[in-house]
Amino acid sequence: MTAILISEVGPRDGLQNIATVMPLAAKKAWIAAEAAAGVREIEVGSFVPAKLLPQLADTAEVVAFAKTIPGLIVAVLVPNARGAAAAIAAGVDKLTLPLSVSETHSLANLRKTHAQVLDEARAIAALIAALPVARRPHFEGSLSTVFGCTLEGAIADAQVARLADDLMQAGCDEVGLADTTGYADPAAVRRMIALVRRVVGDGALTGIHLHNTRGLGLANALAALDAGLTTLDSSLGGLGGCPFAPGASGNIVTEDLAFMLAAMGYQTGIDLEKLIAVRTILSDALAGEPLYGFLPDAGLPLGFAY
Amino acid sequence: MTAILISEVGPRDGLQNIATVMPLAAKKAWIAAEAAAGVREIEVGSFVPAKLLPQLADTAEVVAFAKTIPGLIVAVLVPNARGAAAAIAAGVDKLTLPLSVSETHSLANLRKTHAQVLDEARAIAALIAALPVARRPHFEGSLSTVFGCTLEGAIADAQVARLADDLMQAGCDEVGLADTTGYADPAAVRRMIALVRRVVGDGALTGIHLHNTRGLGLANALAALDAGLTTLDSSLGGLGGCPFAPGASGNIVTEDLAFMLAAMGYQTGIDLEKLIAVRTILSDALAGEPLYGFLPDAGLPLGFAY
Repeated sequence: MTAILISEVGPRDGLQNIATVMPLAAKKAWIAAEAAAGVREIEVGSFVPAKLLPQLADTAEVVAFAKTIPGLIVAVLVPNARGAAAAIAAGVDKLTLPLSVSETHSLANLRKTHAQVLDEARAIAALIAALPVARRPHFEGSLSTVFGCTLEGAIADAQVARLADDLMQAGCDEVGLADTTGYADPAAVRRMIALVRRVVGDGALTGIHLHNTRGLGLANALAALDAGLTTLDSSLGGLGGCPFAPGASGNIVTEDLAFMLAAMGYQTGIDLEKLIAVRTILSDALAGEPLYGFLPDAGLPLGFAY
Repeated sequence: MTAILISEVGPRDGLQNIATVMPLAAKKAWIAAEAAAGVREIEVGSFVPAKLLPQLADTAEVVAFAKTIPGLIVAVLVPNARGAAAAIAAGVDKLTLPLSVSETHSLANLRKTHAQVLDEARAIAALIAALPVARRPHFEGSLSTVFGCTLEGAIADAQVARLADDLMQAGCDEVGLADTTGYADPAAVRRMIALVRRVVGDGALTGIHLHNTRGLGLANALAALDAGLTTLDSSLGGLGGCPFAPGASGNIVTEDLAFMLAAMGYQTGIDLEKLIAVRTILSDALAGEPLYGFLPDAGLPLGFAY
């Protein structure tokens, strides 16, 4: 059985897309329960200024708690070297720097040109290189809007290839693909994986971040699995995802993804019943926030074994 | 570009699963509008006793209307030879006889053993053989609950293989696969296609009927496409599908399927904007009935060309 790593991004991508601020105690309960259900990597927050994302202002404390859970890979998003320094100080295992392949989107979202984001990538790599080897976090450069941008539309292949190479040259350990806008389809997923692999090699592209904005999230995940990717981002309850808000979130649902993988015989280490039970922590702490997912309502097939 | 046939089953599978009876005029408007949007095959009803399914009591009139639309393949479901005789009299192009590979389900649903359903299949084949060649409808035997049954659980491969062979021996032109219970996953779709093809040959298995009960509908469709199937059933607005009711419907949504196919470069002949506009006929005629689908709410990606 092939092992697939589900990287739960709800505490970061989910919470940053809803107005309610989840109390620290609920975040801790969520992360602990999901780790206990067998999820092995959780993106627990983002080191951004609290005034920009008050929902994630307690990320350092969340990281400190998550690091007490044996075996859990504690990941965060960072927008720049300043955030990376804070992430390193907090002791994260993995940090992800997004680089939007649409420069229009990069300017609108991070207020940075491509050159400026790559400067940050180099600075982050330098921070990491200065650490003792055993303390160095894994550093991923995430190619966001890679399947198209709500402002620019399609992005030229040559630009994607150049930026993937730039991120590796800047010192990333690997690059990831992110369908920020929910524009991906299975053919595009296959094509983009092949394109980026030609630049960075097979070993430096293992993960993909998919949204379900147009309902193709799990079909796109299947295409990525077929192409050999082994890390898939998803969000418990599809949190943060009004899948219908243009340009907004709508992560694929962890419960449904975990079910698909289990049904197909992939090994994720996840106990599906325990995973579904974690939803009550979200519904209790975020009253009125819609949770998505088909499996939680339909239940497992009769006699389902995994 | 490979051509894929989307077979719209909403007027049959959608309407039979909701309490409201759609007026004949609305059915005609729906079928006409969807054909005008480029849908080339529509399952317009079922020849069952009106007391069992009053929603489909006007199937003969619906067939007569649909047959006036140039180029449209007019399909119906029939439970037995009596229904097939009525379908033939009405002039259908295609008829489908379901055979549930779970005999428990077959008895609960059709009140017939496998042997009795196969008797009906032989009787239908005889009715068709008695017609002039030009008037013979295409005859499909649909292997329902083939991915598992809510009563029996998994069905033995040998039983599926035997029944597929039995249907062909009984005189079907082809067999189809139907995930009646929403139990399928992409690996199971691939495995079942390979299994049934070994029995009936590649040419006698071209279509699949998928539900989205556990959210895997389009991933399963992708697996079927990759395996070379060329006819996919779906329902406009996912009509009839509370996807959450155990054992109930929840067809994959025509709009989302058509979008996935267009995005991947498959040719369906469907105009996506026109297709989405057909939903208003459903929402007007079936007030309060939920319609599903992601594409209608999210819209097409910026610059989307197909």
